Amino acid sequence: MRIMVLGGDGYLGWPTAMAFRRAGHQVRAIDNYLRRTLAAATDSDALMPNPRLPERVEIFRRVCDSPIEFAEGDCSDFGFISEQVQDFAPDAIVHYAEQPSAPYSMIGYDEARTTLSNNLLATFNAVWAVLQHAPDCHIIKLGTMGEYGTPNIDIEEGWIDIEHKGRRDRFLFPRQAGSLYHTTKVLDTDLLWFYVRVYGLRVTDLMQGPVYGISTDEADLDRRLMPNFHYDDIFGTVVNRFLVQAVASVPLTVYGKGGQIRGYLNLRDTLQCIELAAANPARKGELRVLNQFTETFSVNELAERVRRVAVGMGLPAEVRHIDNPRKEMEEHYYNPAHHGLLELGLRPHFMTDDVVAAMIEAILPYRDRIAVDRILPRVRWRQ
Amino acid sequence: MRIMVLGGDGYLGWPTAMAFRRAGHQVRAIDNYLRRTLAAATDSDALMPNPRLPERVEIFRRVCDSPIEFAEGDCSDFGFISEQVQDFAPDAIVHYAEQPSAPYSMIGYDEARTTLSNNLLATFNAVWAVLQHAPDCHIIKLGTMGEYGTPNIDIEEGWIDIEHKGRRDRFLFPRQAGSLYHTTKVLDTDLLWFYVRVYGLRVTDLMQGPVYGISTDEADLDRRLMPNFHYDDIFGTVVNRFLVQAVASVPLTVYGKGGQIRGYLNLRDTLQCIELAAANPARKGELRVLNQFTETFSVNELAERVRRVAVGMGLPAEVRHIDNPRKEMEEHYYNPAHHGLLELGLRPHFMTDDVVAAMIEAILPYRDRIAVDRILPRVRWRQ
Repeated sequence: MRIMVLGGDGYLGWPTAMAFRRAGHQVRAIDNYLRRTLAAATDSDALMPNPRLPERVEIFRRVCDSPIEFAEGDCSDFGFISEQVQDFAPDAIVHYAEQPSAPYSMIGYDEARTTLSNNLLATFNAVWAVLQHAPDCHIIKLGTMGEYGTPNIDIEEGWIDIEHKGRRDRFLFPRQAGSLYHTTKVLDTDLLWFYVRVYGLRVTDLMQGPVYGISTDEADLDRRLMPNFHYDDIFGTVVNRFLVQAVASVPLTVYGKGGQIRGYLNLRDTLQCIELAAANPARKGELRVLNQFTETFSVNELAERVRRVAVGMGLPAEVRHIDNPRKEMEEHYYNPAHHGLLELGLRPHFMTDDVVAAMIEAILPYRDRIAVDRILPRVRWRQ
Repeated sequence: MRIMVLGGDGYLGWPTAMAFRRAGHQVRAIDNYLRRTLAAATDSDALMPNPRLPERVEIFRRVCDSPIEFAEGDCSDFGFISEQVQDFAPDAIVHYAEQPSAPYSMIGYDEARTTLSNNLLATFNAVWAVLQHAPDCHIIKLGTMGEYGTPNIDIEEGWIDIEHKGRRDRFLFPRQAGSLYHTTKVLDTDLLWFYVRVYGLRVTDLMQGPVYGISTDEADLDRRLMPNFHYDDIFGTVVNRFLVQAVASVPLTVYGKGGQIRGYLNLRDTLQCIELAAANPARKGELRVLNQFTETFSVNELAERVRRVAVGMGLPAEVRHIDNPRKEMEEHYYNPAHHGLLELGLRPHFMTDDVVAAMIEAILPYRDRIAVDRILPRVRWRQ
């Protein structure tokens, strides 16, 4: 297949590009380094140095004897993305090209506006580039489990049958997200569903939970191929923050009561899910929604797991609860379905103690680069 | 009260500004004439000449001895709208500042992009201008009944209680719209609901059906105060199109089977609804949703009503079914609730034969200005 990866420099985008290429597909990675730019501007650089894409592509070519194409450009520029789609003629587009940080989107007007414009226009332009130049192309869009929020009913996979006053119909499962970033993903879903209905696009929306891990078959071949690993409060996610706090021997900081439950998955499983979605495309006129995670944990459970493993490795880890900078429920019902990807063949890598220990081992060589102050909340949801 | 009307040059915006001013409120109307610009660009000018706002404001001042403030500018420019809100300090903002045409939004990439950017940014900027400069201000947002689409269950007023597998929660009523324009209104709702939840804004979302009529107490004082009356396929709505076709003695063109049912209201009732919403503001942290229409009709019923009244007036009216340029259900269930505004005190003006006859009378003097070819569909939903 011909696979175009939008956001090919990202934590997920780069491993995705490598995995598809190594599996024998033609791959073109697209990025404008927006995440790097915003991370640098907010003093949130990744822990390990990551070469830019031309250098990573060259290293990958030497290690694997396999070329990945790369084009630098902005997906919110329609001329650029339209030309790329026309030129490359993808069978599938994996769309990660979004500002991915919830706290960044909550800093103020400018950051919210950047998030809204970038994310909506990247999706809108991808839709139109496909309509104009590759109408059979399968769009694989990364959504987020955060779109659903934490409703008091079971979360289904994208859709729900509602019976109301004796009549029935099927609808998108209700979405109400906890940050502007997550809300832009809700808007993406509305847009995609509209264009699927009217123009018969084929779209898979992968509602992904927080991802952890830095190891993939390809990334492990050369440390310069490692995905970017953010551990700060803005671009880092909760598991990464805890791991780095444990390595730095500072308390693991839990926001509020710590009863917030989410669905998590290993980076290796993200790659499996994307490959399964690509190998089993949505039909024309279908918006297929799959919930992409393998197990659920509360924040307290994650903190305790990292603490226990770290202590077993001789690190003096402890857990501390701090004021929650976010506006979210700290104790809630959470029972999301996740059958679809398992039925397609996903074989999960669970978060065992060995997996946690391996992540800590991978971070230890970079201990001196950790800036512990940037792990604590610098952005608050309430003005 | 101090009332700011965004989109104050529009079919609804200008009558709203006049009605609030005549009722004794301070009013500032804001517009950048986007609708006029787009209508001119698509050969869709209004039937009657409408002076621009400075002239209309001056005529209104002379007729009513009452000043309406006016500022020309673009609500998608945050610097502009932010300064306006800071300077005027509104108690309520009535937000009509959106590209309002479904067919326009379906022409192609550029028109879709203009609709998406303008509508989302006007809403986003209004939210932020209020957050920064007038956090108690009540935002009265014009939504549309079209956001709900035509579900197979009763349409409630904005919200629905869902019981699912033995548990219950309350959600926004599912929305799935039939054009990109209507979809941008769905995105607006998602955005507003997010900012209401997180920052405690007070917002009323008025889910309005198609409006008909050109008569209001103030507009009737001088024909140059008349709202802009579009009758073409792009900026006109179905009742206006039928009235003009009857006056021009050409067939009333029904799209497809004509079983499409919608909720309609008289322009005079729109004014009542807006005034009732302003007089009874939403609470802080409340997104109040009200379905704004007074009666439902199928397209066939509307065509037959206009035909019958026109024939009674000696006009040789007939009805003709043509290929539907839109993608929509032509026969469907439709049972939307509309209690809220009646409970607030709305006294409906129904579409009686007299009302239809009065509209035909008002159009007759402009018969020679009608361009009948622009009433037929020039935009198709399928590419």
